[in-house]
Amino acid sequence: MPFSKSSFSKSVLALTIAAVSFSGYAAQQADLMITDGTVLTMNPQNQVFEQGTVVVKGNKIIAVGGPELAKQYKADKVLDVDGDIVMPGLINTHTHASMTVFRSLADDVPDRLHRYIFPLENKMVSRDMVRVGANLANVEMVKGGVTTYADMYYFEDEVAKTVDKIGMRAVLGESVIKFPVADAKNADEGIQYAVNFINEYKDHPRITPAFAPHAPYTNTTEHLQQIAKLSQELDVPVMIHLAETDREVEEIAKRTGGKSPVQYMADIGALNNKVLAAHTIEVNDKDIDLLEQYDVGVAHNMSANIKSAKGVAPVTTMLEKGIRVGLGTDGPMSGNTITTMDELGQVAKVHKLATKNRAAMPPLTVVEMATMGSAKALHMEDKLGSLETGKLADVIVVDTKAPNMVPMYNPFAALVYGAYGANVRHTIVDGNILMQDRKLLTVDEEAIRKEALVFSDKVREAVIASGEVVK
Amino acid sequence: MPFSKSSFSKSVLALTIAAVSFSGYAAQQADLMITDGTVLTMNPQNQVFEQGTVVVKGNKIIAVGGPELAKQYKADKVLDVDGDIVMPGLINTHTHASMTVFRSLADDVPDRLHRYIFPLENKMVSRDMVRVGANLANVEMVKGGVTTYADMYYFEDEVAKTVDKIGMRAVLGESVIKFPVADAKNADEGIQYAVNFINEYKDHPRITPAFAPHAPYTNTTEHLQQIAKLSQELDVPVMIHLAETDREVEEIAKRTGGKSPVQYMADIGALNNKVLAAHTIEVNDKDIDLLEQYDVGVAHNMSANIKSAKGVAPVTTMLEKGIRVGLGTDGPMSGNTITTMDELGQVAKVHKLATKNRAAMPPLTVVEMATMGSAKALHMEDKLGSLETGKLADVIVVDTKAPNMVPMYNPFAALVYGAYGANVRHTIVDGNILMQDRKLLTVDEEAIRKEALVFSDKVREAVIASGEVVK
Repeated sequence: MPFSKSSFSKSVLALTIAAVSFSGYAAQQADLMITDGTVLTMNPQNQVFEQGTVVVKGNKIIAVGGPELAKQYKADKVLDVDGDIVMPGLINTHTHASMTVFRSLADDVPDRLHRYIFPLENKMVSRDMVRVGANLANVEMVKGGVTTYADMYYFEDEVAKTVDKIGMRAVLGESVIKFPVADAKNADEGIQYAVNFINEYKDHPRITPAFAPHAPYTNTTEHLQQIAKLSQELDVPVMIHLAETDREVEEIAKRTGGKSPVQYMADIGALNNKVLAAHTIEVNDKDIDLLEQYDVGVAHNMSANIKSAKGVAPVTTMLEKGIRVGLGTDGPMSGNTITTMDELGQVAKVHKLATKNRAAMPPLTVVEMATMGSAKALHMEDKLGSLETGKLADVIVVDTKAPNMVPMYNPFAALVYGAYGANVRHTIVDGNILMQDRKLLTVDEEAIRKEALVFSDKVREAVIASGEVVK
Repeated sequence: MPFSKSSFSKSVLALTIAAVSFSGYAAQQADLMITDGTVLTMNPQNQVFEQGTVVVKGNKIIAVGGPELAKQYKADKVLDVDGDIVMPGLINTHTHASMTVFRSLADDVPDRLHRYIFPLENKMVSRDMVRVGANLANVEMVKGGVTTYADMYYFEDEVAKTVDKIGMRAVLGESVIKFPVADAKNADEGIQYAVNFINEYKDHPRITPAFAPHAPYTNTTEHLQQIAKLSQELDVPVMIHLAETDREVEEIAKRTGGKSPVQYMADIGALNNKVLAAHTIEVNDKDIDLLEQYDVGVAHNMSANIKSAKGVAPVTTMLEKGIRVGLGTDGPMSGNTITTMDELGQVAKVHKLATKNRAAMPPLTVVEMATMGSAKALHMEDKLGSLETGKLADVIVVDTKAPNMVPMYNPFAALVYGAYGANVRHTIVDGNILMQDRKLLTVDEEAIRKEALVFSDKVREAVIASGEVVK
């Protein structure tokens, strides 16, 4: 025998090591692994990994790092993304998803909410409309890289069913408003609807039910206070349009003898760390301090706010004060697209214009606002907003081969100044792939589009042809 | 024989008619036909045809109309677009195409042109860079629905070769500037380069060669006057950055004892109907009157102008005065994407913000500016800008099935507030299909992208790694 026992053992050992190394026996088991990405972690150091790896097990991220990490894990599913951007899923902090079915109706009508939208909704909102519109919105958001959204509308239990089905994450706020609407005759009924909805969904793994008092001027002080109290008892968020319009400022000033909407909300005890305030355009320095003091989340909706000529929320100041500001799109009658990917460039550019400073609102700040900032606005930064071990596995991959993304000296600048919603390749929520290479895996996109078109024909017939809703 | 001669004849006749009708013998021959489109003609009545047809023969449009038209023609190639938007190709009235290779470098550096871009160009611009960058830009523009573009850069003969190859239409302006640049030691050499280029390309069917004096403050009065004279003699356009920056306003005021840039250009005899002025942000009422009086074309570049915090050109006023205003993107270091499809929403929204009027700049006006307005800015409205019989066959088809385009109560609003550059499905220039279903037919997109990436590695090495160009 040419080998001693000792040298034979060594050879066996070497072979065993080689086998482990090649077949991956020693590697830890994961469910999903994304490899060779330009990984924007959005962690506190804003770390970027070239040829980076993100490892997912169950619904959580279990490791994030460089190329070496890919060798330490084996996963049932591997997405090799060939240099594409890998980043936290976008969080849309303010929309009215179901309104997709009304998109491109009477876009520039003056005083549109009161003259057009409320009458339109009075005529057309139904359980069916809410379902059809939310389905279409979910498709658009998943295709545009939104993994979580905050919604304010009616029949939110219908929205919840669509979110559950497609696999997204959402904070769903049932509207409360002082006049009759499709699912409630008055604010009391609206609150009861919301409480029932909250009780039904409070344990859902991806859905956070919430109250959504429409605005200070469309609710009474008593109802706003009642909602504030209930939100503490039930431990749920409160979403509200706040300091959005001139009309609101006037009406609240009239109600209070001159107070601003933010001051009014603070004084009646309705501002706290459960509140997500949308818009906050009409705010003074004292209001900004109140938003900070009460730890309120803010949803910044640039497209909708400038399209309606309302103005630019002073977000550069808010960020300096450490306020929780996230990005939103507003509803599809307002924005009109509903992925915050389309907001990035507008937020970066319009704040430069508004502050006359080309260094204002740099790309990194904007991407932070779309991810961690939005998670903070929802008071969910412990679970969402960055690619870090232990966080929920909400991840998107953005195509960097589209000509508008080439070359990419700075991935944050490429995203903010160059990317389209349509550049999102893969969307992952809670560890599940909802879209792979632009193909939706959990719903039938074409069926949803066709259902929306059928509903839009009803809108044409009832609203446009009849001329009943003012144009 | 059961039939009389007469009845036999009638039968034959009937059979003949049926044969003509079914086989299309009586139909006129065309080369290309687009059917079942939502056809936005952008003709003087802004006519829209539902289930519309556009018929092309050679490089011209020979008919535009409703579904009945499809039966009157037979074509070698038929694109049934199933309700998608069919519209004139977009015209980008201002860009620096080759700068794609620098995109996402140092985006928000103060005084960027002088501190970063000129030094960068001094180091990196070459015949090769111009070719590589223009190829990438052409791909992006064709994929974004741009069929004609107006370019200002160096080595424009290289840009011309890329335009000739891909099959686009372009107005290519060779730069003239008073300091040494890559293809000329001074303005005299620049003018000579331009004259040679103009003589080489003046008979090209799709390329219009032009002079491109960089700006009033980067050229002497004498050179601006010489170019004005030569442009008349050679019958070619003159493109110039005009009234773009504070610095320009100051320098021209110093040169002239207080004149505005537009006034200065008028007074030296350099304003006329051959001029295409980019930006025109720093203009007063008198300047606007001069632009109208001299029939100057204006390129409006919203993204670039607000990204650099320069301001909003008073385009609503210019349109009221009947000035020829078209849309541009500026270069890819400025805009940063280079299809004007991405400008539509920003133009609509930022003018509403700037004028505090949500009815300002409605969708139809914006689409007009992107098509007929841009054709007018180039003084080419007799040939381009609308889908009308006799015009050149530059046509695009925009996907209306993408979720961001659903539903579509108003196609102009859907385009302006909803569409991405990436929603363009087909691009046709001069009767030839350059892109069909997102696939480029005349160039190798992947090879062009890879060549751009190779060049970007050189940029990284020479500029970023060396730290030679200020950041």
